[in-house]
Amino acid sequence: MTDITIDQARTIVSATLAKGREMGLKPLSVIVLDAGGHAKAFEREDGASPGRFAIAEGKAYGAVMLGMGGTAQMARAEQQAYFMAAVNGAFGGRVVPVPGGILVRDAEGAVIGAVGVTGDTSDNDLEAGAAGIAAAGLTAEG
Amino acid sequence: MTDITIDQARTIVSATLAKGREMGLKPLSVIVLDAGGHAKAFEREDGASPGRFAIAEGKAYGAVMLGMGGTAQMARAEQQAYFMAAVNGAFGGRVVPVPGGILVRDAEGAVIGAVGVTGDTSDNDLEAGAAGIAAAGLTAEG
Amino acid sequence: MTDITIDQARTIVSATLAKGREMGLKPLSVIVLDAGGHAKAFEREDGASPGRFAIAEGKAYGAVMLGMGGTAQMARAEQQAYFMAAVNGAFGGRVVPVPGGILVRDAEGAVIGAVGVTGDTSDNDLEAGAAGIAAAGLTAEG
Amino acid sequence: MTDITIDQARTIVSATLAKGREMGLKPLSVIVLDAGGHAKAFEREDGASPGRFAIAEGKAYGAVMLGMGGTAQMARAEQQAYFMAAVNGAFGGRVVPVPGGILVRDAEGAVIGAVGVTGDTSDNDLEAGAAGIAAAGLTAEG
Repeated sequence: MTDITIDQARTIVSATLAKGREMGLKPLSVIVLDAGGHAKAFEREDGASPGRFAIAEGKAYGAVMLGMGGTAQMARAEQQAYFMAAVNGAFGGRVVPVPGGILVRDAEGAVIGAVGVTGDTSDNDLEAGAAGIAAAGLTAEG
Repeated sequence: MTDITIDQARTIVSATLAKGREMGLKPLSVIVLDAGGHAKAFEREDGASPGRFAIAEGKAYGAVMLGMGGTAQMARAEQQAYFMAAVNGAFGGRVVPVPGGILVRDAEGAVIGAVGVTGDTSDNDLEAGAAGIAAAGLTAEG
Repeated sequence: MTDITIDQARTIVSATLAKGREMGLKPLSVIVLDAGGHAKAFEREDGASPGRFAIAEGKAYGAVMLGMGGTAQMARAEQQAYFMAAVNGAFGGRVVPVPGGILVRDAEGAVIGAVGVTGDTSDNDLEAGAAGIAAAGLTAEG
Repeated sequence: MTDITIDQARTIVSATLAKGREMGLKPLSVIVLDAGGHAKAFEREDGASPGRFAIAEGKAYGAVMLGMGGTAQMARAEQQAYFMAAVNGAFGGRVVPVPGGILVRDAEGAVIGAVGVTGDTSDNDLEAGAAGIAAAGLTAEG
């Protein structure tokens, strides 16, 4: 397993926020975690509510710990709500299973980290984050 | 209370993983708990997501603490979701009530431990774990 | 309450890391919290251990929640260890009372946030962070 | 960052336990964590007390999250007890700062995981674990 670098993480954060401005989204918050689920970089734009770190982190943490993007987690939660609730108990409540939690894969397909975006609708959060990941030359699995 | 031995636990772990390879499953993680719910042995295959310990442990812990395999727990969760949520509150969120949590019984029918398998579908996880338990000459209750 | 802006936070993070490189320090991690103790920006350099977010956050959180820089917190901990332990109980264990936790004040002297730096010695962490805060035209209270 | 493999982890566990038998130690428990602090492999010998997972994990977790072996953590705890107590608060009480928590480095010196050994004296735990890491061709930092 290789880990995302701080240079890649910075590119993802700045390109995600730039995409959000281009799309006219509400103020965004973006986190990049490494392949072990530990924070590499985070920014919260002015005007975002103060609790956005925990939501961004929960989206990205669930993705990397479960090896599933937020879209797949949401599908599982809708099919089997008690399962995702139980999984979240096992992770101390740190998993937020909706779009905007995005796995980051390198050219070989290995997971090297995850991104969490929050602030607008879940689908817009995902679109901005995927653009950020692409700007770093990496592959997003939303 | 008789407890599963480390030799039995090692056989279960290696035979479960061998069965997973034979079935062509995704990378698996396997835990063996003793009759008190405490870890004896664990392995996580390369390529499995980092959070698999908590899920394997949650499946096995629920089985041994409730005295019910994961299949029976899932049935209860589907009938009465609030009950399993309340049970999980009582156990600090450590119960993951789906197949792949397996009680282990000795020749007299006594529970001597539990196994938790995660990584593929819940049904495949159970099939691999049951094969591992059988390889140790013990009886699985999934 | 005026809060630190994302532009100020970015300047602090990048100037702190630049100062660390200039001083030849080990890989650093830097967090900027707003005046309510909530994360605005964070970066962890390549080669820093994975747990550095929690330590950086603990230094900055203690500073802003108690209204005391890390140096003053350390003095208090050395005089009255049980008091700081009790304070930490009240804050759920989030306070790390050593240098490298730095209050950030604006031109009127109001606290607008806090910075936490970790990775080298506590004194070096503080020196790098103070340089970062100065680069943003703000006043550091270490 | 590369991660320790399951084959390396298995070698470390079995060679640590073999060393413990050779030294005539009490029953041991051994965990191997990856570079992100997540369990790869664990075994608890028959006769070890049931709580040994948490102690083994706490030794290894502190090592990898702080980037310091247990010996260095113990020295810091003896010099500045309130600091290690505060750090442990930041990590939810998961850090056990004594010998037997061992960083694992590859040939280039990169941390690829950590080992935690518990059951005998801390110094004997460390000696057995270091032998296990050497058996896998890796470098131990106790």
